[in-house]
Amino acid sequence: MENLQEKLLPQINDPADLRRLSVEQLDQLAAELREYIIQVVSVRGGHLAPNLGAVELTLALHYAFDTPTDQLVWDVGHQCYTHKIITGRREAFTTLRSVAGLSGFPKRCESPYDVIETGHASTSISAALGLAAARDIAGRDHQVVAVIGDGALTGGLAWEGLNNVGFNQTKMIVVLNDNEMSIDPNVGALAKYLLRMRTSPGYLKLKKGVKQSLPNIPLVGKPLFRALDITKDAVKSNTLNREGLLFEEMGLNYMGPVDGHDIPALIEMFSRAKEVDGPVLLHVLTHKGHGYAPAEEHPERFHGTAPFDIESGKVLHKDYSYTNAFSEAMVDMAAKDERIVGITAAMSIGTGLAAFAEQHPQRFFDVGIAEEHALTFASGLAAGGARPIVALYSSFLQRAYDQLLHDICMPQLPVVIALDRAGIVGDDGETHQGIFDISFLRSIPGLTMLAPKNAAELQAMLPYAVSLDAPVVMRYPRGKAEVGSLGEPLVYGHAELRKSGADCAIFAVGPMCAVAEKAAELLLKQGIKAAVYNARFLQPLPAELMEVAASCPRIATIEDNIVDGGFGEACRAALPNSVDVLSIGFPKAFIQQATRDQLFQRYGLTALNLAAQIQERWFNK
Amino acid sequence: MENLQEKLLPQINDPADLRRLSVEQLDQLAAELREYIIQVVSVRGGHLAPNLGAVELTLALHYAFDTPTDQLVWDVGHQCYTHKIITGRREAFTTLRSVAGLSGFPKRCESPYDVIETGHASTSISAALGLAAARDIAGRDHQVVAVIGDGALTGGLAWEGLNNVGFNQTKMIVVLNDNEMSIDPNVGALAKYLLRMRTSPGYLKLKKGVKQSLPNIPLVGKPLFRALDITKDAVKSNTLNREGLLFEEMGLNYMGPVDGHDIPALIEMFSRAKEVDGPVLLHVLTHKGHGYAPAEEHPERFHGTAPFDIESGKVLHKDYSYTNAFSEAMVDMAAKDERIVGITAAMSIGTGLAAFAEQHPQRFFDVGIAEEHALTFASGLAAGGARPIVALYSSFLQRAYDQLLHDICMPQLPVVIALDRAGIVGDDGETHQGIFDISFLRSIPGLTMLAPKNAAELQAMLPYAVSLDAPVVMRYPRGKAEVGSLGEPLVYGHAELRKSGADCAIFAVGPMCAVAEKAAELLLKQGIKAAVYNARFLQPLPAELMEVAASCPRIATIEDNIVDGGFGEACRAALPNSVDVLSIGFPKAFIQQATRDQLFQRYGLTALNLAAQIQERWFNK
Repeated sequence: MENLQEKLLPQINDPADLRRLSVEQLDQLAAELREYIIQVVSVRGGHLAPNLGAVELTLALHYAFDTPTDQLVWDVGHQCYTHKIITGRREAFTTLRSVAGLSGFPKRCESPYDVIETGHASTSISAALGLAAARDIAGRDHQVVAVIGDGALTGGLAWEGLNNVGFNQTKMIVVLNDNEMSIDPNVGALAKYLLRMRTSPGYLKLKKGVKQSLPNIPLVGKPLFRALDITKDAVKSNTLNREGLLFEEMGLNYMGPVDGHDIPALIEMFSRAKEVDGPVLLHVLTHKGHGYAPAEEHPERFHGTAPFDIESGKVLHKDYSYTNAFSEAMVDMAAKDERIVGITAAMSIGTGLAAFAEQHPQRFFDVGIAEEHALTFASGLAAGGARPIVALYSSFLQRAYDQLLHDICMPQLPVVIALDRAGIVGDDGETHQGIFDISFLRSIPGLTMLAPKNAAELQAMLPYAVSLDAPVVMRYPRGKAEVGSLGEPLVYGHAELRKSGADCAIFAVGPMCAVAEKAAELLLKQGIKAAVYNARFLQPLPAELMEVAASCPRIATIEDNIVDGGFGEACRAALPNSVDVLSIGFPKAFIQQATRDQLFQRYGLTALNLAAQIQERWFNK
Repeated sequence: MENLQEKLLPQINDPADLRRLSVEQLDQLAAELREYIIQVVSVRGGHLAPNLGAVELTLALHYAFDTPTDQLVWDVGHQCYTHKIITGRREAFTTLRSVAGLSGFPKRCESPYDVIETGHASTSISAALGLAAARDIAGRDHQVVAVIGDGALTGGLAWEGLNNVGFNQTKMIVVLNDNEMSIDPNVGALAKYLLRMRTSPGYLKLKKGVKQSLPNIPLVGKPLFRALDITKDAVKSNTLNREGLLFEEMGLNYMGPVDGHDIPALIEMFSRAKEVDGPVLLHVLTHKGHGYAPAEEHPERFHGTAPFDIESGKVLHKDYSYTNAFSEAMVDMAAKDERIVGITAAMSIGTGLAAFAEQHPQRFFDVGIAEEHALTFASGLAAGGARPIVALYSSFLQRAYDQLLHDICMPQLPVVIALDRAGIVGDDGETHQGIFDISFLRSIPGLTMLAPKNAAELQAMLPYAVSLDAPVVMRYPRGKAEVGSLGEPLVYGHAELRKSGADCAIFAVGPMCAVAEKAAELLLKQGIKAAVYNARFLQPLPAELMEVAASCPRIATIEDNIVDGGFGEACRAALPNSVDVLSIGFPKAFIQQATRDQLFQRYGLTALNLAAQIQERWFNK
């Protein structure tokens, strides 16, 4: 029967088309969107569970607000697929996360509906307050709406934003998309607090009440519900329990909670919120993965997923990764050393800490999306005698540069940062590339920086890093890891010689070692003998660099970081002018999405290009 | 009469001596400490107002807690002078902030009582939670106390910490030292919230009540007040109003507010708090500058002060600074351009934004100690059509590296960062040196980085930066600025030729230009003709660099940044090997306190050293 209905989605080319539908039709549209999203993500991979949770919310927002005049700001952007599809990108959506295709995150260059770009969490309230302030200064009067998940609300930046919203009393709406998850199940006192509201009898009563009152809502235009006398107190009376007080105390008008899959209820609430003369926090309850059983059951696995089989929900294939190697090493080390503590910022699965967490719950801390706290908390643990390992993604460590410098390196506290997703991440694109870390970390005094060439070396490096009793960052990439072997034992400040050769030398960072070895093989076919060193130490620089330079004036470096300020430049700065340095790495740019292999090809981080450049520069006489 | 009393301070060599005094004697000791602090700071400069506000609080803490077994964590460290004096550093205190003297901030190398180092705000709760977690894991049972000001509580890191404290339910005490100020008067919804508690009739009643009950408190040992049945609910009943609910909702047991200058009341409260089995937030009300009239009247001026006359409260002398130049330029530019918005993170006086704020209150935003929000808020303003100028200190921009990269540079939004205190700050020491910014900023794609050589150039560069309609950082130092003149007009990507010369060329960063010009004069006396360029552009590098290199293979650089990853290295990386590059700057180290001049001398950022190095490297045949 459903199949006989006319499809609505093909008719929606922008939100104006959406607003021509009746509220009842939106449920059908939601179902069509859900099917389309599942279909595309099963092929392209992407953030499935949060997007499935936000379908109705997004439709209601664009229905109730006059976008793009009214401005929507999506926090993180893990929930923007419906938004993209109904704002003129329906057909382009099949190119999601692929080269030259749609980004998985809001992008200003894609659409005027994408007012603010994101990728990292907790920025929406601050950015929306900026839009609201600009509106007020210019004397305009449109609406500004930030949509933030309960997970992102654990980030300090969100608190800084709320503190200013409540103080400024500017008219704006913060939609709290409360799905009880960030990436992993949520942690923190705020999560407990929100849970109490979610399970309060008042909410359950409202949920029923609004559903029943549904048919009375006019389908288009301003709803009857709009009270003419809406004031702060009137809104408060809509509050079903006193627990919204936390937000009220912060100076926001709290409304909710409301069922985030009940489109008429959402539209009604938005219409009321629009009339409030001041900041509103609208509490919406959604379910991650809503409407797709495997994602509802395992929302953390389907937060961000590789391509999968729709029927079974199984990911098509998964390589043994550096993350897997780290995961095993943590478990192994923790069994032998009681001082080991593991810390993650809402990524126990993504970083591989979950296995450790299961075995040592008392030594495991998921601090929520709060990288700054993760590092400063670790500094306290280290000062107290523990040996904390903080597992983070490279692009998120950007959030905690000062904490690493000020709280850990300045007092020289023994904290190890396991820096996953260093280098190219691929399809998540520019916000998630881990290509800046060498550049911003290598100037921090007292920080040792390591990079393993394979899984076996990572597993040896982790306990080695702990044994240094000092601040250490160990960086390693996303994706498939060769298991390999350690090779030469680890010695402080020393590289590992992988291949001898007197014509030139290549110093390679971590996984670039395999590329360098292949390049050396190619060169050998041309009669050029290139030595290959696995740098291992990015800071301090390996002693072999100067040793080699004494006899060989041709040194190449290869790193999966930008060249500017990176490992190659550090080598060049340390070497005398008599040594010519050829540095291969990414250019100083925000590298857009593509597969990792495509990006290595495109930017020349390949054996072929490395060999060709070496030959051309030094051996084409 | 008071003068006849035996002085107590000379008897206090560590907190055990303190605990031998009666509670009544502590008031006398507080008076002696206050006098001593005023005396030393009037000579050395330092953080006067916050330290005067925390004398009684500190005495009560060390009296009630068994330090150093019990661990005290000071947020920022602006209030640690009493702590330093009574923990074995009484005599050394006269060396405050001078070369090889006591640091103005807690330092682990100074004393076992300084458990955690600070300097930047909002770290104490996270660090203390780390200490508490380490204690729990190791099965120890001492107390852990964080002392945080209401200003520092506006920082997102503090929120991340609270969110985890409330969730973990570990036993620890957060003392909220509420003085209604951060550096400037506090802003934000939280400040309003705390103000309501401060002025509640309940608090005024308690204040009176506790003072009267004073004589009943036993002088040594556990106070009679200790209730045997202290539980969360019993503690709650001590709460005089329901407003502590914000903290209660976050999972902390709220106690207070209590008068922070009433030592017996404080000791009583600490004793009660110690018995609570879980996290406690103890709300203490203090007055910045307490006991010294000029500081009470102008706490923001006496937050951090240069040496001053005790009688009049007047600062001995003050040079015209880069900050003054920025201040004037903002006012000037804002009068002509309605889009200009000024943003500070609790430093309107320190950054010079106060004059602009007075004239354009509707376009001025003090966001509190919240650098991350400051930048993301600015990105929203820029996206909304405004032209925000964010005035920050270099060392605090370290807090917002990701926001600059992700929220401003990635979408190329027109935000200008006026980066004050770039380079050496002097007596505030290692936490406040602005010597890393070139290194961590120059690898950010799409960021223009400028440095003016004098006040006139700064005043021309500010509107020029705005005219670029793109992300710009303009860095300038603390201290005296020569007014000078602009010289050649500003042209994108071009340096300014200050002196011609064909033997070698010096590229100087901002205020190092004057040093380079003097060096050139010295060299000329030796017959060496050095060209001097004011770099102006640190990113992109000035075109003149390559032009000069084509004819002159000897290029020197001088920058008030560390050499590693800095301007000189960037130049070297851009130049061919045929050009020899001599780079002068600070070494990769945390540079300790001294006057700016002492540090320039010590690290060779002088005309004499620059000239000598150039001569030795290139002209001693």
